[in-house]
Amino acid sequence: MADSPRVHPQALCESSEVGSGTRIWAFAHVMPGARIGRDCNIGGHVFVESGAVLGDRVTVKNGALIWEGVTLADDVFVGPGVAFTNDRLPRSPRAEDDAITRRYARPEDWLVATRVEQGASLGAGAVILCGLRIGAWAMVAAGAVVTRDVPPHACVMGSPARVRGRVCRCGAPLDTALECAGCGRSWTIHGDGLSPA
Amino acid sequence: MADSPRVHPQALCESSEVGSGTRIWAFAHVMPGARIGRDCNIGGHVFVESGAVLGDRVTVKNGALIWEGVTLADDVFVGPGVAFTNDRLPRSPRAEDDAITRRYARPEDWLVATRVEQGASLGAGAVILCGLRIGAWAMVAAGAVVTRDVPPHACVMGSPARVRGRVCRCGAPLDTALECAGCGRSWTIHGDGLSPA
Amino acid sequence: MADSPRVHPQALCESSEVGSGTRIWAFAHVMPGARIGRDCNIGGHVFVESGAVLGDRVTVKNGALIWEGVTLADDVFVGPGVAFTNDRLPRSPRAEDDAITRRYARPEDWLVATRVEQGASLGAGAVILCGLRIGAWAMVAAGAVVTRDVPPHACVMGSPARVRGRVCRCGAPLDTALECAGCGRSWTIHGDGLSPA
Repeated sequence: MADSPRVHPQALCESSEVGSGTRIWAFAHVMPGARIGRDCNIGGHVFVESGAVLGDRVTVKNGALIWEGVTLADDVFVGPGVAFTNDRLPRSPRAEDDAITRRYARPEDWLVATRVEQGASLGAGAVILCGLRIGAWAMVAAGAVVTRDVPPHACVMGSPARVRGRVCRCGAPLDTALECAGCGRSWTIHGDGLSPA
Repeated sequence: MADSPRVHPQALCESSEVGSGTRIWAFAHVMPGARIGRDCNIGGHVFVESGAVLGDRVTVKNGALIWEGVTLADDVFVGPGVAFTNDRLPRSPRAEDDAITRRYARPEDWLVATRVEQGASLGAGAVILCGLRIGAWAMVAAGAVVTRDVPPHACVMGSPARVRGRVCRCGAPLDTALECAGCGRSWTIHGDGLSPA
Repeated sequence: MADSPRVHPQALCESSEVGSGTRIWAFAHVMPGARIGRDCNIGGHVFVESGAVLGDRVTVKNGALIWEGVTLADDVFVGPGVAFTNDRLPRSPRAEDDAITRRYARPEDWLVATRVEQGASLGAGAVILCGLRIGAWAMVAAGAVVTRDVPPHACVMGSPARVRGRVCRCGAPLDTALECAGCGRSWTIHGDGLSPA
């Protein structure tokens, strides 16, 4: 448990804030100032920008792109090829246009945060617009384009993504009785999410 | 024809089961135990996981992600940025949750296979859910999210992907007479696919 | 301004036609014969193929894939994970099929160009079919699958992408009066696009 991160010789880890037990795979790039917790798995070809914050036990599959402004709580799963965003109205910051130059001079004018709560899963190839909260233990289906907040334990799919059901903490879909056929847990509705029954 | 694979100096090929004539380009990573046939082209930034199986003459364009459980038959085309999956209900396997820990301890509880039959094409950015069969010489449009089996010679598009027509072996769309304006072949319906007329 | 391109030590820039002031980041690969203008930013894990043409001050975010046949005018923004295409009916060029072999022997039989005009933005994870023109200062939403031409200043979203409004040169949405609440510019309709009022 006290080991330092294990960084593949072909990876580039420039951050000094990566927790013990975390592995970083080939051709991944973690920039200076990115914060990554303990016992995470950062897949090949992943990019984690300065300012991104990842909790403990997070799994980031290959090719996912994580920017400044993105926070991933503990136990989150980010599928292969998932793309986050942090700018609602992107332009090339180097364009010859005074309005664009002004906007990119001040991060508060363009940088928009996104938070993924504990244990949520983002399926392969999902695209996550910015300014959103993805609730704890939610499940974003592969290929979904998420344009709104996702409630805890919700399952969303499609483009744009819409709620299609609820999932257990273990990942299995829940029926209307909110009993999990997978692991046996029972749930009750609590605010916009679920709590143990 | 008897040459060994040609691996770009910036690629990482850890498998000893790659056929002659196959090329692997910069920043691609082929893991130990991945099986790749002869005369394939594995593009830059591609990831092929241990346990994946590729036939002969397969083209995998840049950035595609191919997991254990995925089988690509001969002559398949995988477009740029295509993401496969192999887990229907992904969670971070390192999450502190007994039900999740149990599930990931047994591959048979989460690992779901996908098979792409001979000559099928997967367009750029397509996302392929798992447990599916994509039929021979099918054509998955760019950006499609494939959630069901695809019949042989079918053309599917959209999110979720739906059948919108049939294509010839050469790739050209077929009219209702099933005659190809591209290469001149004629087809007849045979089961859920086509056979030469 | 007279500096040569700055190429990250982990990047691979094989082109001699990259303008001064342009930066190329880790694990990016620019092939010989790709042309890139001045003061561009080519993100990590980007691929730029021989024959692709990029103007000045273009921003290409991480993991984007740019092929021969693609032209990006000055000031374009290409979001993370954007995939271009250049073949309408892709097959594996190495497939054992005479019609396929013949087609790939002649670029004019399969290579289809796409042009992105000045200042346009392509959001994260967008997929761009080929043979298209994306008009100046257009905005393609994250996750969009673009299957038709996009008019100048249009905002398109969805799969397939449809026009949902107009945007200012600065990126802000325009109301029906075509006045920008962001930067104060006024516009009038001009052909299929806008000109300053």
